[in-house]
This record gives sequence, structure tokens and C-alpha cells, in this order.
Amino acid sequence: MRRSERLVRLTRKLMNHPGEPLSLTEMADHLDAAKSSLSEDLAIIRSVMEADREGILRTQMGASGGVLFAVDVSDERSRSFAGKAIESLSRGDRILPGGYLFMSDVLSEPEVLRMAGKMFAKIFAATAPDVVLTVETKGIPLTVMTAQYLHRPFVVARRDSRVTEGSSVSINYVSGSDRRIQTMSLSKRSLPKGARVLIIDDFMKAGGTVKAMKGLMSEFDANVVGTGVFMETAEPGDKLVSNYISLLSLSQVNESDRRVAIEPGNYFTGYSREESVPDEGVAHN
Amino acid sequence: MRRSERLVRLTRKLMNHPGEPLSLTEMADHLDAAKSSLSEDLAIIRSVMEADREGILRTQMGASGGVLFAVDVSDERSRSFAGKAIESLSRGDRILPGGYLFMSDVLSEPEVLRMAGKMFAKIFAATAPDVVLTVETKGIPLTVMTAQYLHRPFVVARRDSRVTEGSSVSINYVSGSDRRIQTMSLSKRSLPKGARVLIIDDFMKAGGTVKAMKGLMSEFDANVVGTGVFMETAEPGDKLVSNYISLLSLSQVNESDRRVAIEPGNYFTGYSREESVPDEGVAHN
Repeated sequence: MRRSERLVRLTRKLMNHPGEPLSLTEMADHLDAAKSSLSEDLAIIRSVMEADREGILRTQMGASGGVLFAVDVSDERSRSFAGKAIESLSRGDRILPGGYLFMSDVLSEPEVLRMAGKMFAKIFAATAPDVVLTVETKGIPLTVMTAQYLHRPFVVARRDSRVTEGSSVSINYVSGSDRRIQTMSLSKRSLPKGARVLIIDDFMKAGGTVKAMKGLMSEFDANVVGTGVFMETAEPGDKLVSNYISLLSLSQVNESDRRVAIEPGNYFTGYSREESVPDEGVAHN
Repeated sequence: MRRSERLVRLTRKLMNHPGEPLSLTEMADHLDAAKSSLSEDLAIIRSVMEADREGILRTQMGASGGVLFAVDVSDERSRSFAGKAIESLSRGDRILPGGYLFMSDVLSEPEVLRMAGKMFAKIFAATAPDVVLTVETKGIPLTVMTAQYLHRPFVVARRDSRVTEGSSVSINYVSGSDRRIQTMSLSKRSLPKGARVLIIDDFMKAGGTVKAMKGLMSEFDANVVGTGVFMETAEPGDKLVSNYISLLSLSQVNESDRRVAIEPGNYFTGYSREESVPDEGVAHN
């Protein structure tokens, strides 16, 4: 096989398997190449990926040597992404009765999901989550893409417990924004004890839903290692959760004069990461 | 830039943008390469992708020339995928009370979602859908991945109408399996008139849910161009919908002796594709 063909196959393999440790021996066998040739190929791919800030190749040499392609996103690309998303989401005709912002269409665009997933995967890779968690419904696509780039499974908490999930753990919580009592359930078999969990959701206002997900995780003896939301609201500034990363921040939705104001989130302006979650005293049943 | 570096960048670009028409002029500019060099590079990539049955490169030459990478999956890989999925899903401890099969964990594995998404994208690419439709909750991840590989947006019908979606169209339908009356809603602004719609769901028993999605689509004057489900049940053989593709077929769930029997679906054994959906007289409100 010529080097040009090997480079195409190797690049494809890495792009198809982000976040997954790949065996050098298997790849060398599959490509019918000497490990030394493979190393040279990977060096070329690495230099290109790192120059373009598209990914980092972590290699481990030796008998059980492997390579892992971790997605990267340059500041320039993430700022350009945020700019375009803000432009699209700020259109006045997105305002719905009650001051909600219609954003389902944007959160279904392939490129938006890909970029958001990559940004979350990049920023949370170091927290080494075992699993990604969200609650139905709108956070699921972001969760799917983040989990893809991290090569991790995900779990979806339900708003009620369904028979097709088997026995489950449920908690009740008060939604921060409308003060209603809500239920959140997760199948008992979804998570192993002590799992490291990354929480992803589409929208955060007061933080009641994320706080409830953290409470649910404490029921599973799981450790929440990070929280990422696509959009937070600037108000209330004092949220029920303190450590999270937002890609966008919604500062104004004015129904009367149809004005929407959105800024880049704390992904761009600095944030802190939590290490574990204390029991927050959420009521359970 | 050396050819080796161009090949890595081009392969990455195509893998990052499946189903999306890409401009040759923009790529040539971006890579600072002559179009003739680019054509040679693409010829190498095409021959590798087609030899491996990983994708088809459709190029359009001329002033507004472009290239589109359509994902492909070989029969060998899809059969191997089905075999592994069947093995994992046939474990007796997956049987839940009521004869349901727990499969949320399998449908959250990155590789399973990737393969299922590619298989659906491959088989439905020729139907040229404008949008992919599912109903919450478990079909969403499959829908996200299928839409990624087809480079299309998706819409998620809700089990109830939510305020954050604006005004919506709702239909009532009788679930085929448990005869309960259910509601399905979709925001009015989700779909343009005359949209070509691909329906994706995780599971189909009698077909009541898919039939309801088709009924909902007729309310939007949309054309259903295809239906894909991850798993169908062998019984009832006489379903409420007639044209669909299944990746797997569940023929037995025996609660007493903990036996599960799953076969490859009609994806592997032949199927027919529908061109449009007639009004099926679903009640609406």
C-alpha cells in the first residue's frame, strides 16, 4: 500500500473513532505496514491536526502501544461558531409567548451539534468522564454528540419512569424557574457505582434541573465531574449550581420590542471546574 | 503544502462533512493548491473510500464544481454489526417485566449509534429527505446520527405540547401495542410545507407510533419518503405501516425461561421503499 493510501485510511480511522484508544499493532496489521512506517504516517497526521488545532494525537509506544485522537477546537473557530449562533438565535421572531426563545431548529443543525459537541468534548476531556448524563428532551442531541467525541456512552434521565427501563430511582425537585414540583427518574441499571459523570443540557436558567441531576447522581453514588450547557441566562446571576460551562449567555428577551441579546458564555471568559458533588439534600422517593 | 498534508486535510474535511456539498474552489483556496492537484488528491481518496466501501465521492466538475462524501457501509461490516448487536441484546438479563427488552445501554454506545446512523444514511440517501423526524425519547440518538451523516436537520415530535415550542399541531392516536390513546405534537414552525421527511425510531411493534408520525406529517403537507427502525418485532407480522426498513427483528422474548431471539432485520433481506404517504385518517385536535 502506498503512503498516500495509508494516510487516507489512518486519517479516516482516527476521525471515525475520536476519543477511542486504537491499537498500533492492529492498525499495522490491517494496513499491512511496518510499525515504523505507521509511526511516520502518524507523525504527519499529528503535525497537520495540531497545526490546524483540529485534534491532538496521543500515542503510547511499546508492545501494547496505542494512539488516541482527541478533538480540539481553536479559539478562532469556537468564537466564529458562537458569533454565527448568536446571529441566528437573536432574530426577534424567535421570541415565544412567555419570553421563551425558540432554538430547536438551531440545535438540530448538523454543524451546530458537531461544533458544540467538539467544544464540550475538548473542555471536559481532562475530567475523564465515564458517562454523559442529560434529562429528556432537548439536551439529548448535544449529549449524543459530546459522547461521540469523548467515546463514552450516555444516559438520559426521564421526566417520568417508564416500564421499558425496568426499576428506577426517582427524585422530586422544584424547578427553579417556575416553582413547579417535577420528577426525574433514571433506570437503576443505567450507571455503575462510583461512575464519573459529565452533565450536558441545552438551557439553564436558575439551575434547578442541573441541581436535580446532581441530586440524582448522588443517589447512584456517582461523581459529577463537570456540567456543560449550550445556553445559560444571565439572570439570575446567582444560580443553584456554581460550577458549569456555558457556550452562550442569554441576557435579554424583550417580548414587547422583540429584542434578544445573547453573549458568548463563560466557555470563552473563564470558568472553574468542580471535582465532586456534595449531597444537596434533594428530596427522593 | 505537500501532498501528504493535503490528503490528511482533505480526508478530514470530507469525514467532518458527510452528505454536504463542498466547493472545490474554496477547498483549493484553503489548501493553496491548484484544482488539478486537488482533483488528483480526491481521486486517491475516492479509490480508497470505494475500495473499502466506506464512502462514495460524488464530484461535479466545472466553475461551480463541488464534491460530496456519501457514507457507505459494506455488507460485511453491517452483518458483523448486526451479529454483535444481536449477541449483546439477546442476554436474558435484559428482559424486563412485561416482556420488554432493555436496550438503552446498547443504543448509547458510540459505535452502535455510528453504525446504525451510517446504515440508515446509506439506505435512505437516494430518497433525498429534507429533514429527519422522530418522536421523543429513545429514537432521538439514532435520529441525530442519521441526520449527521445525511447532513440534514431533524425534528422531534413531543408527547405533549410544550410552551417553549410555540404553537403546535397535535394529533391523537391509539398506540398499537397497548391500545392507549396518546398525543403527539410538533411545533408549527418545525417544518416547511412539502418537506420530504425520513422517519426514524428505535422500536416498532404494531406500527402505531410510526403511523401516527405519518398522520402528523400529512397535517404539515409533508411527504414521508422513508421509515427506518432499529428493531421491529416479528409479531404482529401484519403491521399498521407497510414500508419500512428494520436493522433487527425481535422474534421472541420469553419471560419464564429468559430467552430472547433476535434476527437481522429486513435491511438485510430486502424491503420496498415508499414514495409518499396518503392521509391515513388519524384524528387531530
